[in-house]
Amino acid sequence: MRFLVPFESTTPKTRLDGVLDAAERGAFSRAMLRDVCEAVADAGHTAEVLATAPVSVDTSVTVDERPLSAAINARLGDERVGIVVADLALVTSAAVDRLTDAAADADVAIAPGRGGGTNALVVDHPEFRVDFHGVSYRDHRALAREIGASIGVVDSMRLATDVDVPADLVEVLLHGDGEAASWLRAAGFELDASGGRVGVRRE
Amino acid sequence: MRFLVPFESTTPKTRLDGVLDAAERGAFSRAMLRDVCEAVADAGHTAEVLATAPVSVDTSVTVDERPLSAAINARLGDERVGIVVADLALVTSAAVDRLTDAAADADVAIAPGRGGGTNALVVDHPEFRVDFHGVSYRDHRALAREIGASIGVVDSMRLATDVDVPADLVEVLLHGDGEAASWLRAAGFELDASGGRVGVRRE
Repeated sequence: MRFLVPFESTTPKTRLDGVLDAAERGAFSRAMLRDVCEAVADAGHTAEVLATAPVSVDTSVTVDERPLSAAINARLGDERVGIVVADLALVTSAAVDRLTDAAADADVAIAPGRGGGTNALVVDHPEFRVDFHGVSYRDHRALAREIGASIGVVDSMRLATDVDVPADLVEVLLHGDGEAASWLRAAGFELDASGGRVGVRRE
Repeated sequence: MRFLVPFESTTPKTRLDGVLDAAERGAFSRAMLRDVCEAVADAGHTAEVLATAPVSVDTSVTVDERPLSAAINARLGDERVGIVVADLALVTSAAVDRLTDAAADADVAIAPGRGGGTNALVVDHPEFRVDFHGVSYRDHRALAREIGASIGVVDSMRLATDVDVPADLVEVLLHGDGEAASWLRAAGFELDASGGRVGVRRE
């Protein structure tokens, strides 16, 4: 199956600006993107990056300057298509398999993200369109019901964990085993359990 | 299988004090406890609540004033035992099944919680003991390796989402369908998508 991987190349991961400078945010976000593309390929699918500007990754890249949802919707139609966001640093081919397994019995398979987002989909219905703004998990479910599309939901922590804020780096250090986790360790990040909650610190 | 469900009856869920008063935190935490016990029972297992003080729940309750880890370790030994924390408001019998499926091939099955915690286990090794302090997911894995116990890990958002802070209530409202979700809605909580991130507000 073809998997679209939207990527914001210009100013990625701005909410990590407390712990990473702009160049580092770019490098880290590209490492996550490569991990996502590798998991998709390892699961037997074809990743196609939709980037706002050219980016170096060993996968087909299409530059589309439109906002995320518009760029994806321009590519939805009669053919079954997967979509996975580029900041899923914990994703594995097994997690991709679970998404496609859920899609076998449903017109639309959804992997919810933490906080009401949508982190991955498989769409097999000609009328379905995405809108990643707001409580997109709720909105995508409502749209599917409206157009009579059946829904499958994937219960996966790996698919639910998009990396947006410094607290999310804890998950990458603990559960990631790809380039993004290696990048963080090489940059000196480690777990910090000295406070009440587990966080990260940098050497 | 017997599942231990440790419950802090005295001052539960103190980190929700910004949005719930003490009596409400008690009522909400008991609703989550009942949801957990129901999911365990629906999956065909026997829930045994280990509470720091008596609590009203339609399940066997043992009062044990020791700290969480000590109370559980006193009950680990030769018999296979499940453990699930009491604040998993999203847990379903299907999620419990996935944990026990992982346990079929492993001496210790672990469901990691967000932030390095451990939210559920099935222990089938006489030397394994729990320690829920700090980065317990990492520590439990290290102990299992040390004693030669094989490890199974469950990739589940429902098992990973323990409810500690107000942001976690978003997940309960979106994905919960038990007593805890109903309690929150009856108390006037709803999703708030007016800011940058999705949160909750109370009417």
